[in-house]
Amino acid sequence: MNAHLSIAEKLTLAVRSVIPAEELQHIALHEPRFHGNEWAYVKECIDTNWVSSTGSYVNRFEQMLAEFTGIPHAVAVVNGTAALHICLKLSGVSTNDEVLMPTLSFVATANAVSYVGAIPHFVDSDRRTLGIDAVKLMDYLKEISDVRGSMIFNKRTGRRIKAVIPMHTFGHPVDLDALKEVCDHYHLTMIEDAAESLGSYYKGVHTGHQGLMSAFSFNGNKIITTGGGGAILTHNAKLAEYARHLTTTAKVPHKWEYYHDEIGYNYRMPNINAALGCAQLEQLPRFIQAKRSLADQYKLVFKDIQGVEFFEEAPYARSNYWLNVVLLHPEYADQRDELLNLSNARGVMTRPSWNPLHTLPMYAQAPKMDLSVAEELNGRIINIPSSVYDNAISI
Amino acid sequence: MNAHLSIAEKLTLAVRSVIPAEELQHIALHEPRFHGNEWAYVKECIDTNWVSSTGSYVNRFEQMLAEFTGIPHAVAVVNGTAALHICLKLSGVSTNDEVLMPTLSFVATANAVSYVGAIPHFVDSDRRTLGIDAVKLMDYLKEISDVRGSMIFNKRTGRRIKAVIPMHTFGHPVDLDALKEVCDHYHLTMIEDAAESLGSYYKGVHTGHQGLMSAFSFNGNKIITTGGGGAILTHNAKLAEYARHLTTTAKVPHKWEYYHDEIGYNYRMPNINAALGCAQLEQLPRFIQAKRSLADQYKLVFKDIQGVEFFEEAPYARSNYWLNVVLLHPEYADQRDELLNLSNARGVMTRPSWNPLHTLPMYAQAPKMDLSVAEELNGRIINIPSSVYDNAISI
Ligand SMILES: Cc1ncc(COP(=O)(O)O)c(C=O)c1O
Ligand SMILES: Cc1ncc(COP(=O)(O)O)c(C=O)c1O
Repeated sequence: MNAHLSIAEKLTLAVRSVIPAEELQHIALHEPRFHGNEWAYVKECIDTNWVSSTGSYVNRFEQMLAEFTGIPHAVAVVNGTAALHICLKLSGVSTNDEVLMPTLSFVATANAVSYVGAIPHFVDSDRRTLGIDAVKLMDYLKEISDVRGSMIFNKRTGRRIKAVIPMHTFGHPVDLDALKEVCDHYHLTMIEDAAESLGSYYKGVHTGHQGLMSAFSFNGNKIITTGGGGAILTHNAKLAEYARHLTTTAKVPHKWEYYHDEIGYNYRMPNINAALGCAQLEQLPRFIQAKRSLADQYKLVFKDIQGVEFFEEAPYARSNYWLNVVLLHPEYADQRDELLNLSNARGVMTRPSWNPLHTLPMYAQAPKMDLSVAEELNGRIINIPSSVYDNAISI
Repeated sequence: MNAHLSIAEKLTLAVRSVIPAEELQHIALHEPRFHGNEWAYVKECIDTNWVSSTGSYVNRFEQMLAEFTGIPHAVAVVNGTAALHICLKLSGVSTNDEVLMPTLSFVATANAVSYVGAIPHFVDSDRRTLGIDAVKLMDYLKEISDVRGSMIFNKRTGRRIKAVIPMHTFGHPVDLDALKEVCDHYHLTMIEDAAESLGSYYKGVHTGHQGLMSAFSFNGNKIITTGGGGAILTHNAKLAEYARHLTTTAKVPHKWEYYHDEIGYNYRMPNINAALGCAQLEQLPRFIQAKRSLADQYKLVFKDIQGVEFFEEAPYARSNYWLNVVLLHPEYADQRDELLNLSNARGVMTRPSWNPLHTLPMYAQAPKMDLSVAEELNGRIINIPSSVYDNAISI
């Protein structure tokens, strides 16, 4: 490539070089694909009058999720945020507890913690995974925590630290074994925010297995979509049953009585959205293949572009490459905004990472460790177009 | 009719006599009807890849709702419960406030109050409307409340009483003017739970106009459905804008930055559900006509059945007759369960009212006035089949 091109121009050209010609008009960051049974299943819902919750597609979608991930129980809900909320509640996180989570995450991870009256406590990132750095966390907890029986407390705030929410950033699994050690050592409950990692595996096992409960999202920008949607997955049959109860307004099943035995939520996924989900799940293996092929192509074209590095899965991981990432080299980090401006102006949609959660006004006072890696990474992460392209599969 | 038939048998026969022959196999309490553009609009969502939020059907659905009700601003959300939650939050109801509401309501009215940390305070029913009895409420507030400046406090609990949520039961408008007087006198904010009253008018004005904000539901059992869905309606442009912001994760609009300026929610309605909603709203005038005609038929057939009374709209009201109600005469109230058993066994779906909210375990300690009318009515309310039947229109 021409040495006189700016890094912004090079990146734009590199992306365009791997996208099929007929898609070059407007290259979205991530667009859904509906080329399977979406149509047929949704039509069946409408024709049979079953669009609302407790429809048969909801059950089918849950079964398919359980089969695909190998996590035996799935409860389909209105979105990933609702899934996280219920996971936290059923894990016993309550008012004034602290919950550890990466500062590099979507705001929903922290918001869900607020919904149960708890406080997010921000953790730094691992360069290899973009997720929680388990070693740094272990070290930090040694310093700030006070173990009393089977509970740990934050010496600085006096509050109980109850749980940790690892998040598999852009589909890349965090080092779950290392984190499990931290959890075991410090009596922390693990809840996986697997919103971005459907189809991602850690040491051959699907993400979401290690958490007591795990939350998935099927928002419009995710690897599969139900319009809006999410799911709670767990190995624990009792917790799954309880999740189903709480998300169905805590109504006690009865032929006609409306008896609710606690404060519940209207969080179940409607049947019409689940119908979309069933059709999408059928295509998931193909979507993953296409995404991994696209990542392979990106790997090749970015190899020779100085100043950016294509982010690859860790050796133990098999990522769904949901949203592809390039990292600007530190000396080019000041060109980030120029790069975003130019690429978007040229019809190649790119995005920076989220503003780290500890920089948002409502979480600015929340407890946090040193977050220097996350802060540094944050200025360098660029998401690049990552839709499923059918040509990508043939590679 | 045969004098030797039980009241249960008479009611079952009476219902069957007004339902079209081809529908007699299984007579649901309320089934949706999708005979309009549902199919075409949903297909368009799928074909254009716009199933998720921020799609064009969401805007269109909101405009149609505003036009239909005459309430200028509408914000479409995932369901009626979410709508109530946001109405309460934006009306300034907060931790430890009390919120007045009918004990005869669906549990969501009280749950939404709990979500903002406030406490439901239960109010008795008006026999003419099945909703809040404004006169009894005025009397009660005189007794228990303490006005300090522009706030009122419950003398017994010491807590502020901030708002009142009238609910238009089964579609029947409460006496809003009388309630408005109470609100004005006691500095209470009114939030209308109009979940059941789309298409119902109070003195010629659509329900939902008097509340600072009002909540609607489009659940599968409502007069129109979006699978799952709800909306916040208001005359206040600023509150509508704020509701839109809070329900969209409080994200500050930007080309690419993810900046959220407070704790928000993922509560917006997905486009595919809004597509269904647009098609349903187009048919709403027809649905209302069919429901009112069905009510007219019920009125006739129940006239001569001793022991049950068909519940009719108040003189000032024009009800959507969403769920038709018969009231068992007090001396037959002990036959309620037999009636429910027999009619359901014979394929005529009937239901009692909700268990009054003050009898549910999580609200058993909540403050309440004398609730004798609600308790007495509760044992006598029977909901009878109320779907849209096309033959009903021709009457
Ligand atoms: C990391 C993470 N957590 C939680 C969520 C919340 O999921 P949803 O948007 O379905 O509520 C998302 C997706 O938006 C996410 O990316
Ligand atoms: C009176 C009342 N309030 C609130 C709701 C909640 O609406 P949704 O079910 O859409 O959450 C309903 C309907 O279910 C209702 O009937």
